Amino acid sequence: MNFETLEYNVEGHILTLRLNRPDRMNAFTTPMAHELVAAIDAADADDDIRAIVTTGNGKAFCAGADLGGGSSTFDYDEKPDNAQDPTAAPRDTGGRVTLRLFQCTKPVIGAINGAAVGIGATMTLPMDIRLASERARFGFVFARRGIVPEAASSWFLPRVVGISQALEWCMRGHVFGADEALAGGLVKAVYPEDQLLPAAYAIANEIAENTAPVSVALTRQLMWRMLGEDHPMAAHKLDSRGVYFRGKQADAQEGVMSFLEKRPANFNDKPSQDMPEFYPWWEEPQYD
Amino acid sequence: MNFETLEYNVEGHILTLRLNRPDRMNAFTTPMAHELVAAIDAADADDDIRAIVTTGNGKAFCAGADLGGGSSTFDYDEKPDNAQDPTAAPRDTGGRVTLRLFQCTKPVIGAINGAAVGIGATMTLPMDIRLASERARFGFVFARRGIVPEAASSWFLPRVVGISQALEWCMRGHVFGADEALAGGLVKAVYPEDQLLPAAYAIANEIAENTAPVSVALTRQLMWRMLGEDHPMAAHKLDSRGVYFRGKQADAQEGVMSFLEKRPANFNDKPSQDMPEFYPWWEEPQYD
Amino acid sequence: MNFETLEYNVEGHILTLRLNRPDRMNAFTTPMAHELVAAIDAADADDDIRAIVTTGNGKAFCAGADLGGGSSTFDYDEKPDNAQDPTAAPRDTGGRVTLRLFQCTKPVIGAINGAAVGIGATMTLPMDIRLASERARFGFVFARRGIVPEAASSWFLPRVVGISQALEWCMRGHVFGADEALAGGLVKAVYPEDQLLPAAYAIANEIAENTAPVSVALTRQLMWRMLGEDHPMAAHKLDSRGVYFRGKQADAQEGVMSFLEKRPANFNDKPSQDMPEFYPWWEEPQYD
Repeated sequence: MNFETLEYNVEGHILTLRLNRPDRMNAFTTPMAHELVAAIDAADADDDIRAIVTTGNGKAFCAGADLGGGSSTFDYDEKPDNAQDPTAAPRDTGGRVTLRLFQCTKPVIGAINGAAVGIGATMTLPMDIRLASERARFGFVFARRGIVPEAASSWFLPRVVGISQALEWCMRGHVFGADEALAGGLVKAVYPEDQLLPAAYAIANEIAENTAPVSVALTRQLMWRMLGEDHPMAAHKLDSRGVYFRGKQADAQEGVMSFLEKRPANFNDKPSQDMPEFYPWWEEPQYD
Repeated sequence: MNFETLEYNVEGHILTLRLNRPDRMNAFTTPMAHELVAAIDAADADDDIRAIVTTGNGKAFCAGADLGGGSSTFDYDEKPDNAQDPTAAPRDTGGRVTLRLFQCTKPVIGAINGAAVGIGATMTLPMDIRLASERARFGFVFARRGIVPEAASSWFLPRVVGISQALEWCMRGHVFGADEALAGGLVKAVYPEDQLLPAAYAIANEIAENTAPVSVALTRQLMWRMLGEDHPMAAHKLDSRGVYFRGKQADAQEGVMSFLEKRPANFNDKPSQDMPEFYPWWEEPQYD
Repeated sequence: MNFETLEYNVEGHILTLRLNRPDRMNAFTTPMAHELVAAIDAADADDDIRAIVTTGNGKAFCAGADLGGGSSTFDYDEKPDNAQDPTAAPRDTGGRVTLRLFQCTKPVIGAINGAAVGIGATMTLPMDIRLASERARFGFVFARRGIVPEAASSWFLPRVVGISQALEWCMRGHVFGADEALAGGLVKAVYPEDQLLPAAYAIANEIAENTAPVSVALTRQLMWRMLGEDHPMAAHKLDSRGVYFRGKQADAQEGVMSFLEKRPANFNDKPSQDMPEFYPWWEEPQYD
């Protein structure tokens, strides 16, 4: 895969996706949004990829929307980028990325190596695990730029860190360090700079080596989708079908036998062809 | 109450419910599922029971589904147990237990004394308070067995520990210790082995001695059910009716007067006959 | 503004709202409920107010419902106060306050200086940031008074502190100190008594000086309202419109230019006249 704003590298079962505008602190642009969506599309279609690590090239993770447009940065009608997609004008590009990550069937680990501000922070919210370098900086700065939280972060952030922490960060709009992110539940752990990617790969490899990709894909969607359900019966209906369907597949036999025989499991069911017939069980809402 | 897979003992106002297959690490079976449902039914119907403590006999709390069936363990069609209930085949038995706990009107304290893996972990999620022994081990191992999270845990777990921790534990599928469970918010506290049950009983007795059972029953259902409501008006409508109805009952008078007179309260309203007329205010969804 | 049960003081851009029945530990009454609603109405209508600090005069924050009515305290039909409002009888007065705070467009900081018990605790839940004095005490004591959690707290509390902590506090009904409130996520930080208000004002001033009031108002409602949405698409639709609309306003230009020029921003858009045309995007549910 060749991208202008990203690097897309697969090694073993792990995709590393690097934001790659280091001279601009990986500032977010409309092309980057479209390329991120395309990269997740490609990863989802590739059975060899069992986990995704996302990080930034250079000193920043993503310093936010590229403010090169000056005072008209957030006036979409003034942005020539959007001419590429005539429907994009009134649609936030950050949200295209986070909604695509929400639908992803691979586990996504954010390795936040530096500044993650604005869309640089909000794009990480639908990732499954966020790790930070000691050098990371975060900011939900929208109220200080005169706009509003974007990338569907008003939905994601309260679910990730709780409503009170979400409100505080968005009301104050300050930039804060990795320690505050850790204390507030935004990241799982903080590492010295040179240990961040090794830690991310350790988790990615643990998942790739030990779990069944079809199970992981179903699990990821069950977890995120059940956030929107009012009653646990919704989960009971789906997981009953899930265990019934999976229980007849080779992976479930291998999962039990490898455990009983105390050996590594060798899971071969493939997301491209072995997902249960009831998947997807939802209809994705359309933008209108 | 006589059970094959459980011990059911009432002392004072406390029911102790012990998983009782210690030679099998209290591994979960279909009969155990049915007996757990029956035990909660009995507890709910007994006004003398004001709190429930759940623990395991022997070294484990519950080591998960009994894998005695080998490679066909999760192939329900191969399980003779289910012949007892022809509708059970495509229905997860763990979910029967967690949905019943969800509807329970007594406070449930999980005293997790050892391994709590798979259904052993997920069955604790609809309990109100989880305490762990230092020897406890937890695992949401479904993706390592080739199946999916069950017992409606894709609904419960993100609500108990947050979506990020839920995703991490289910994606990795590793077994982890009491410290990680405490840090992740899965348990309230960790105790040396011999102090676990005393701690559980201290809380159970505090509730039994100081609170009004009808109030506790209403509170438990208000809290769990309001998770599924979109707007606080739903709670305002119900708690207005709740305070109005309860405010005319003897318990509310006793609650205020005992407080003003600085003496222990003596609450006599009974869940079996004194629940407000608007209870239950919901219609329980059916499995289909 | 003149109130009987409150003090309402605006200094700079900060409203300080003080519960003012110190001889009764600021115990909550029906007139106090109506005055709190009126105070928030006034604050929302005043563009000069950019943040609200709420605290209590004297030693308590609010010791709960005024129990001066003795055993009939929670029997609304016996309360002459309610005669002022014939529809109030079956409607919890605490919920009127919390639902009004939920709809507020200004950031609200609770500076909890002492006892916050019953409605004294639950009225703080729809505030954005809660700070506590070392002397603060909290209690969700409803089950010990023979009633049920009120003020829509069965909706708010699980969203603020998580379902497990909410259940534990409401099942036990005990009064607890600032440390337990901090550990449980009910308050952001605990301060020595004389540092509580300075800390609250530091945050209030940070917001007032650095953020755009229209952005803050939209952010506050986006965050709270998105708790009730099932899918992040709801946020994507709204924040796309929000960034598009705000992106054409003066604040968004000032937000970017002040950042690029490394100078303080001067935001002049006013909530009274500059909210986007799609606001409010919801219809507030009626009490019935």
